[in-house]
Amino acid sequence: MVTYSEFLSEATKFMRASEIRELLKLTETRKIISFAGGLPDPQTFPIKHLKKIAKEVIEKNGAKALQYSPTKGVTCYREELAKFLSRNRGLKVDIEEIVVTTGSQQALDIIARTLINPNDIVIVEAPTYLAALNAFRIQRPNFIGIPIDDNGMKVDVLEDILKKLRSEGKKVKFLYTVPIAQNPSGVTLSPDRKKRLLELAEEYDFLVVEDDVYGLLVFDASVDTTPLKVIDKTGRVIYVGSFSKILSPGMRLGHIVAPKELADVFERCKQALDLHTPTLTQYIAAEALRKGIIEENLPRIRELYRSKRDVMVEAIAENFPENVWYTKPIGGMFVWVKLNMNIDTKELLPKAVERGVAYVPGKAFYHDMSGIDTMRLNFSYPSPKEIREGIKILGNLIKEVAKSSQ
Amino acid sequence: MVTYSEFLSEATKFMRASEIRELLKLTETRKIISFAGGLPDPQTFPIKHLKKIAKEVIEKNGAKALQYSPTKGVTCYREELAKFLSRNRGLKVDIEEIVVTTGSQQALDIIARTLINPNDIVIVEAPTYLAALNAFRIQRPNFIGIPIDDNGMKVDVLEDILKKLRSEGKKVKFLYTVPIAQNPSGVTLSPDRKKRLLELAEEYDFLVVEDDVYGLLVFDASVDTTPLKVIDKTGRVIYVGSFSKILSPGMRLGHIVAPKELADVFERCKQALDLHTPTLTQYIAAEALRKGIIEENLPRIRELYRSKRDVMVEAIAENFPENVWYTKPIGGMFVWVKLNMNIDTKELLPKAVERGVAYVPGKAFYHDMSGIDTMRLNFSYPSPKEIREGIKILGNLIKEVAKSSQ
Repeated sequence: MVTYSEFLSEATKFMRASEIRELLKLTETRKIISFAGGLPDPQTFPIKHLKKIAKEVIEKNGAKALQYSPTKGVTCYREELAKFLSRNRGLKVDIEEIVVTTGSQQALDIIARTLINPNDIVIVEAPTYLAALNAFRIQRPNFIGIPIDDNGMKVDVLEDILKKLRSEGKKVKFLYTVPIAQNPSGVTLSPDRKKRLLELAEEYDFLVVEDDVYGLLVFDASVDTTPLKVIDKTGRVIYVGSFSKILSPGMRLGHIVAPKELADVFERCKQALDLHTPTLTQYIAAEALRKGIIEENLPRIRELYRSKRDVMVEAIAENFPENVWYTKPIGGMFVWVKLNMNIDTKELLPKAVERGVAYVPGKAFYHDMSGIDTMRLNFSYPSPKEIREGIKILGNLIKEVAKSSQ
Repeated sequence: MVTYSEFLSEATKFMRASEIRELLKLTETRKIISFAGGLPDPQTFPIKHLKKIAKEVIEKNGAKALQYSPTKGVTCYREELAKFLSRNRGLKVDIEEIVVTTGSQQALDIIARTLINPNDIVIVEAPTYLAALNAFRIQRPNFIGIPIDDNGMKVDVLEDILKKLRSEGKKVKFLYTVPIAQNPSGVTLSPDRKKRLLELAEEYDFLVVEDDVYGLLVFDASVDTTPLKVIDKTGRVIYVGSFSKILSPGMRLGHIVAPKELADVFERCKQALDLHTPTLTQYIAAEALRKGIIEENLPRIRELYRSKRDVMVEAIAENFPENVWYTKPIGGMFVWVKLNMNIDTKELLPKAVERGVAYVPGKAFYHDMSGIDTMRLNFSYPSPKEIREGIKILGNLIKEVAKSSQ
């Protein structure tokens, strides 16, 4: 018998099974209303367009689309991507500044591996995107969490912490933020704070990793969605984007946009990781971008998710106890709930699943596993009917538990 | 101005740009006969089948094929893969022992990250697959190289080294081998040595990483191509496979087959790396496997590469100086050449490129950068005409340089 545990690296201790993906497994085996995932509604997939494009791409360009391709990404795809980012996000990008990644998850892994040494300080929002914590954690940084409010990361708190760190002779490697329609909370960084954040990056000499995954999924036209990368004048922002939420997550197309010097390092790293992202999906996406399919589709996706958000927020207002706090997100896919009770949402989860509802316990989104009375609720995937039913079940459960724990 | 170099991790020092991929860039800008790559001949891509399958998969299964999917891989794909491995490689595999990876490169990265601690001993063939060295190197192991001959890794030398290591109180973490039609050399491990290798793994308690990328690309029917994994009785072998050489490299479909306990660790690692390999390409490949397209295609691929190998071996015999040693590979994509001269093939390369021919200098395939007078020549991609022309040019150059250096 081989004792496999003796062969494992130290790093495996920092590879946590994502609570969400474990939950997804759970919900595969039984019928359940799941607010746990972060899945787009498959109604939003442009199936008719993509089946035609896939056939044509293989027919006309098969010899290239099925072959190895450059590590930074297929040239025609990066060209279309650069145009798309210019049209929709105001980014002026040279294709040598783009590294195509296997989903934004790989972008985060590449950034972690090329920037983080053990014990480096990495600043995150508290709460923040759980899979970013998972990617960064393997490189063993020291996380510092900055609280958020309705205007995103509290930049004044950040400044206090930076001052303190400087007085201790410590430097920050980078700050990771999801500035727009944040995952998990749905809040958005205000224009003033964006500006101040970049000033602080300059003053305290750190890099900013901007995760713009929901930048095009904002329902409220009055919200300023300018990326930090557009405001950045000194090259401190590393921009991460993805087509998982606005085209297809199963195609796994993410990208990093960074100053060429860094993009070249990311390229070298990616070469060792998987040589390159699949050529075929890049060719298909290039054609979809050329045909303007995402832009054509976006208003429909926004409207669908806006209406689902409304259903969820209304159902929460109706069914949850009054002292519960929750966000009314202006975009994205999630409502963030803080029960304001002495209830551990992780302990509550098995009971919820028993009654047919799943969510993600909020503490997974905190670098320090705080936030025990919080939860993240996804509204993009379930149907309006399921949202109403599921929130009612969850509301009743919370009320019951609240009563019995008093 | 930001000084980006100050922000880079220590690990970036071990991320080498692959000589091959840098060369591929070089050859993109000018017309050149390249023996440098490891590209399949695009004639071997089943374009007609794949365009039809891609369209049908998106049409019928779009909601699933474009959605997020499990980290270990799409279930129906793993089921078809298990059947394929059983039919063609004699492997009896449960789908929970399979982790689908983004090409075999990611398999090697996952293995490196989950197994290697700095200074762990990793044994490789000398020469060995260059991209494996690149993947492993980031985790900073101590490499030990075992020489090869026509029967693959010299297992007697391995045993001597294992004895010596044991006497020094040192243990080996794993041994990496490409047992069949090895890259770069084209040699194949003999049945006796396979058996002895596994006995040594048991006796000295190490794991074996078997890279079976060319197992189905053997032209000579008399060669024993049984995978180590099939002979392994104690669960020491981690099997790595890929469809890059027999279906399409641009689909980036690799896989690890390992005891479930290890497969679960690999899954946890992969979750942090890229969540999962693209769903769409897995659905397309599942359908291609179900329809038996690879098996139908294989005899044609083998015949094509066998004839190209013949052309290359004959051209070398005709054009290279007599004292040059080279392999007559029974499979795979490469001929390995040792000039037996005081010539550094890396220094020779710019001259070769100037005359319109590229190859990979052999020392990139050695963990210790030895083998300066060796080179790897690819015969799968260039046409027979190009092979004849290119080998003639290269032969003349070698003769000239040999003469002038005497």
